[in-house]
Amino acid sequence: MVIYNEIEVINIFSNITSVVPKGVVGIGDDCAVLPFGVDESMVITTDTLTENTHFILDKITPYNLGYKSLASNISDVIAMGATPTYAFLSITLGGGCSAHWVEEFARGFSELSKKHQISLIGGDTTQSSLAVTITITLIGSVKNSNIKLRSGAKNGDIVFCLNNLGGSAAGLKLLLAGEDTHPLIDTHYKPKLFVEQAQWLAKFMQVHSMMDISDGIAKDFKHILNRSNLGAYINLDMLPIDNRIFEEDKLLGVDVLSLAVEGGEEYAPLFTVQREFAGELMQLYKDKFGIEMYAIGSVSDKMEVGVIEWRSSGVKQNVDYKGYTHL
Amino acid sequence: MVIYNEIEVINIFSNITSVVPKGVVGIGDDCAVLPFGVDESMVITTDTLTENTHFILDKITPYNLGYKSLASNISDVIAMGATPTYAFLSITLGGGCSAHWVEEFARGFSELSKKHQISLIGGDTTQSSLAVTITITLIGSVKNSNIKLRSGAKNGDIVFCLNNLGGSAAGLKLLLAGEDTHPLIDTHYKPKLFVEQAQWLAKFMQVHSMMDISDGIAKDFKHILNRSNLGAYINLDMLPIDNRIFEEDKLLGVDVLSLAVEGGEEYAPLFTVQREFAGELMQLYKDKFGIEMYAIGSVSDKMEVGVIEWRSSGVKQNVDYKGYTHL
Repeated sequence: MVIYNEIEVINIFSNITSVVPKGVVGIGDDCAVLPFGVDESMVITTDTLTENTHFILDKITPYNLGYKSLASNISDVIAMGATPTYAFLSITLGGGCSAHWVEEFARGFSELSKKHQISLIGGDTTQSSLAVTITITLIGSVKNSNIKLRSGAKNGDIVFCLNNLGGSAAGLKLLLAGEDTHPLIDTHYKPKLFVEQAQWLAKFMQVHSMMDISDGIAKDFKHILNRSNLGAYINLDMLPIDNRIFEEDKLLGVDVLSLAVEGGEEYAPLFTVQREFAGELMQLYKDKFGIEMYAIGSVSDKMEVGVIEWRSSGVKQNVDYKGYTHL
Repeated sequence: MVIYNEIEVINIFSNITSVVPKGVVGIGDDCAVLPFGVDESMVITTDTLTENTHFILDKITPYNLGYKSLASNISDVIAMGATPTYAFLSITLGGGCSAHWVEEFARGFSELSKKHQISLIGGDTTQSSLAVTITITLIGSVKNSNIKLRSGAKNGDIVFCLNNLGGSAAGLKLLLAGEDTHPLIDTHYKPKLFVEQAQWLAKFMQVHSMMDISDGIAKDFKHILNRSNLGAYINLDMLPIDNRIFEEDKLLGVDVLSLAVEGGEEYAPLFTVQREFAGELMQLYKDKFGIEMYAIGSVSDKMEVGVIEWRSSGVKQNVDYKGYTHL
């Protein structure tokens, strides 16, 4: 069914737009950025989840779908260093969506929106006999000095991620294998959001670039590299992997490294930090939040732009991870 | 298939949101309004078109679909008195969408966005085997003194519309009857947008309320009445009707009045003006644009709130027009 790839489609649309005014960040980051007032900006993201591509209607509860739809957008907003403020919800309901379904979707959405004091201020409601589709547009606000772009990485930066990897992808595997309840499935449906942590990190000018992992590190990190004109290596043996994967018999034989670097929907920040400050920041982070941030690699202007070299025990591995592809 | 109506669904979502901050206009108008700077606001709307509900994929060219998707959003933004500035495009492509299809969609979108200097600054591209769905979020800017809400109508106001009515609905009828090319079909696919006119009208404080007609006057005007706590009468014999409907044999026997007041997708402003100023504004409008604006009725606090009394030759008619319903 794939007759073009997402990058090609984005290029078609990027090329037809009018000139983007100075000071505005357009297509290519987690969010667009619009200057707002003296030293503030508004960030805006939009994300679509559609039936059978992003979820299977009778496999996901409407509560979880409502929760997750908003979570994926919050993840984009906080990855810019911003605080989410206003949401717009466009939902296309299908014939199988009862009034109870709608209420449960709203309950899941609302639990998360209230937790983060996000106001739902608009949207559109339509009906389709073909597919349930949800598009959320989420707005956030950010001090200009705290904005983190994909393009900000600098030679020598250390690469960090915040969460244990692979849990969401493992949950999806279990789900597709017919499991209904499992903590890893909860992780897939209700991803932990690092809202406080991302906002705290955004205050450090030594955090040079940040984005969220939605399509797997292998794919997403290349956006940082391409936009920053750098290459990188990542130490496969430094990757923090969700321990629960190893404990679950049904996941025996699954390539855990591939889950960790190609698995999508992690919804956690991936960022680069000035080398000289990295150790201090790790300590400050641990003191503040009581959890670790994980150093997994380094970026370099001596390496091929946009390419990740995967290493194990310091030795280059002959692997090519692709990342998560919906389209 | 309809198991709830759009109003019920909107109510479910309206009730679950966090409190909307002071100065912010949330759900219920053509756009949300966010204060922006000293005396400016940002308006934001989002609109979804989905296959088989809003368009039939093999009946509409991708060029027309791209054009129309943006047009319906521009219509919402200008109805607030605002100037459209930035767009976000979320598109779910189906298996039948070739690369050429995508390019043609982009060409239609771009023709209109460039005409109005709208920058495409974000979006999402996904793929589905089930349905093509397009959600556009459009941002506009407006001086606070020019913002026109649905809630602003005042007792005695004269009701106006700008375009000849029924043309878009007649075009849809011809299309569904198997016609391929006809000027009325062009009107359906490429609605005239009253951008300059709406912005000019917005500068007059005597224009008390404004919205766009997307679901037919019979349905849309009730939003103004409900939010302004007023009732109204509309003179059926004052309605400006698209002459081409009468000239087309294939439309003989169609209830022209019903097309005019229930036909959706007119995408033209409907507004109310202070009675004492209405005549002067009509003259100013004609001098400025060389076309008429049409006085079609009046609002009143003596009539039942939210109800339109349909009159002919000054006499109440025993009719009940419903308006256009997708959901």
